[in-house]
Amino acid sequence: MHDETDGPRLSRRAVLGLGGGLAAAGVVAGLGVGRATATAPGPAVASTGTGTYPFTGVHQAGIVTPAQDRLYLAAFDLTTTSRDELVELLRRWTTIAARLTQGLSAGPFGPASGPYDAPPDDTGEAADLPPAGLTITFGLGRSMFVGTPGPDGTPGEDRFGLADRLPDGLVALPHFAADDLDPARSDGDLVVQACADDPQVAVHAIRNLSRAAFGSATIRWTQLGYGRTSSTSTAQRTPRNLFGFKDGTANVKAEETDALDEHVWVPASAGWLAGGSYLVARRIRMRIETWDRTSLREQENLVGRTKGEGAPLSGGTEFTEPDFTAQGRGGAPLIAVDSHVRLAHPSSHDGARMLRRGYNFTDGNDALGRLDAGLFFVAFVRDPRTHYIPVQAALSRDDVLMEYLTHTGSGLFAVPPGVPDGSLVTGADGTPVTTADSPFVGQQLFA
Amino acid sequence: MHDETDGPRLSRRAVLGLGGGLAAAGVVAGLGVGRATATAPGPAVASTGTGTYPFTGVHQAGIVTPAQDRLYLAAFDLTTTSRDELVELLRRWTTIAARLTQGLSAGPFGPASGPYDAPPDDTGEAADLPPAGLTITFGLGRSMFVGTPGPDGTPGEDRFGLADRLPDGLVALPHFAADDLDPARSDGDLVVQACADDPQVAVHAIRNLSRAAFGSATIRWTQLGYGRTSSTSTAQRTPRNLFGFKDGTANVKAEETDALDEHVWVPASAGWLAGGSYLVARRIRMRIETWDRTSLREQENLVGRTKGEGAPLSGGTEFTEPDFTAQGRGGAPLIAVDSHVRLAHPSSHDGARMLRRGYNFTDGNDALGRLDAGLFFVAFVRDPRTHYIPVQAALSRDDVLMEYLTHTGSGLFAVPPGVPDGSLVTGADGTPVTTADSPFVGQQLFA
Repeated sequence: MHDETDGPRLSRRAVLGLGGGLAAAGVVAGLGVGRATATAPGPAVASTGTGTYPFTGVHQAGIVTPAQDRLYLAAFDLTTTSRDELVELLRRWTTIAARLTQGLSAGPFGPASGPYDAPPDDTGEAADLPPAGLTITFGLGRSMFVGTPGPDGTPGEDRFGLADRLPDGLVALPHFAADDLDPARSDGDLVVQACADDPQVAVHAIRNLSRAAFGSATIRWTQLGYGRTSSTSTAQRTPRNLFGFKDGTANVKAEETDALDEHVWVPASAGWLAGGSYLVARRIRMRIETWDRTSLREQENLVGRTKGEGAPLSGGTEFTEPDFTAQGRGGAPLIAVDSHVRLAHPSSHDGARMLRRGYNFTDGNDALGRLDAGLFFVAFVRDPRTHYIPVQAALSRDDVLMEYLTHTGSGLFAVPPGVPDGSLVTGADGTPVTTADSPFVGQQLFA
Repeated sequence: MHDETDGPRLSRRAVLGLGGGLAAAGVVAGLGVGRATATAPGPAVASTGTGTYPFTGVHQAGIVTPAQDRLYLAAFDLTTTSRDELVELLRRWTTIAARLTQGLSAGPFGPASGPYDAPPDDTGEAADLPPAGLTITFGLGRSMFVGTPGPDGTPGEDRFGLADRLPDGLVALPHFAADDLDPARSDGDLVVQACADDPQVAVHAIRNLSRAAFGSATIRWTQLGYGRTSSTSTAQRTPRNLFGFKDGTANVKAEETDALDEHVWVPASAGWLAGGSYLVARRIRMRIETWDRTSLREQENLVGRTKGEGAPLSGGTEFTEPDFTAQGRGGAPLIAVDSHVRLAHPSSHDGARMLRRGYNFTDGNDALGRLDAGLFFVAFVRDPRTHYIPVQAALSRDDVLMEYLTHTGSGLFAVPPGVPDGSLVTGADGTPVTTADSPFVGQQLFA
């Protein structure tokens, strides 16, 4: 579909910088795909829209990358049953993702160049836009390995000969108390998370990857998110969720490398998934109209933090560690026993932490005029059996905040490790190509 | 609901700048509500998120204001049948809009302050965010004046004694050829357009206005938009729609004051609507998967412009005027007779132009995995009978682009003139208040 011929090549940057001309090679040569010298701007640079993050590395980008402002995430169902076609799809996606994240168009024939009698390789709507810190992160669902069980419990089909490669942690999530899951917003064989500081850049990425999947996979569900609800770097301000509270104060941050090894990255003993992670996605609808009618006191007691500063109710400032033993009048704990901050705290879960990377969402309204809005929770964890399921089981059972929350969508995906630096083949014009001999996302799985 | 007492007042800026302290007055005093000295930054300033636009003026903001990056638009149905409650709602909305657009919280009791036993006046999720160039623009639907006709043609009910104030141009739009309208995405008694460079700021505005409407009006439908598809200032770059083409090259721009008087502003003879406008909203779904499979040549012929540069196919560059008489081989016109640029051109419509202010949208996908995406068309016109209906009638009948378009939602609203500079009452802390004696949006309608 995206032949890498010797025809004219256009990059988004070339379109930008050279007025749509064809002399793109000089611009492209400076890009960082697969090079140790790749630029890795801090959040300040990326948030101006001009930065790029390397596509290759030990881990996939889009996990510890400082959380961009916008998300577009798509889950796909495979329509092919051919293992070769699945491999070819991942190879094609790798090439396109490597290009897009470096500010190039999806293929060598951009919107401004021929051949005129074929569709352009790239759909064009991001042609004039800067890379906007785009990252693309791929994940694999349980159904890709073992199919989908029937409603009567009959086992799913191992369409691709991958059942014996199913990662231990890629379990079927149990039912949680606050679940009202819509199957049309849940699961999927594959997931692609596109994050950028411009939603048009993120949507453009998913659209072009979806287009490249034609005949092999179709979109099952998508989620657009704005207003990142977590910081993944100590350089980032703590954002607010739609309850109006700061969220993710105690998140695992990119700078905590020991904590990342302990809580986020799958260990070396895990075979093909070593260096990868698990992505947990939960679409959490908030009953914001009800929430908006509760008193400030009640809101703060439910959360366990102040609304303005985000300080624990035991005192201090935002980053003060909560003191769950502190008592107020009559010996009552200052942080209620059923408050969110206490029940979600690592001390309640054998120290388990997550790297959260969620976004706010607003998807219209229901027939009563209530906003269909909330938190699209995304977390990366080393093992969902220890780092997500027990936490959510406790929260859905005991957290008083659950009165205002309904989980309406859910997905769990194994996230392969990154494509090694320098391993992508480089085409004649210096842009990345994946061939039968070069690594691609998930290659170790098929080795 | 939002008592302006002498209690502590907090602005979003105060929260930002003063660590949640209460000494907001000094900060607030510099704000531009209702002052001739109000700051009116150019797009470069607003796009950094720090700018504000004046709320008051001859016209409402959000029309010729340089188009911000994001949109959240909500149509409301009135649930009250009391004229007094309708007036009170518009008064309350005026106060809140004046505050929010100047970077203040929705009411004096922000998320960080008491009274603790009442809900905060403001929902809080924008507390740490800059104003992001927020504008809020109000419009009034035909059904507010004359009710909604029954399916059998029985006339609607004049609930508010406003039937004789119905503006001449606020007609029921006819059925157009490409229409497949969803009533749940169409019409409404009131509309609020919130535009900002941060979607969280725009959503926060609609949420807080919706909250203030509780008991009087409920949301009927909403639309989130990103990637503005028009420029409204010559200082702005022409953006691209989801067909990958530049859009709005020939838009009416803020700098063309004569053209604004001729095509956008309702003339002085129009009574209470003088200085206002009409807002036409059309949710146009694009069949982008089909589009993506057409050749570059075909795409350019359908549009009548080149995809890269956006130049007319008759030659030149983006801003070259199309030459519809230019012929190519065999005498065929270089710009096809059924191309979009020719059929939409003012020369085909007695010179009628619109001020377009649309946005791209992506609202998930359908059961076949096709993106529910397209263009949320917004235009401001002096009279829809001369400036929109004939144009859309011709386009929906003859434009070859219509093969790729379906109109799935529609609304037409009369946009009252602005609240005059300096006319809002100022509270003890310098923040705006509308009282029974001070003007509010649409006041002339009720005079």
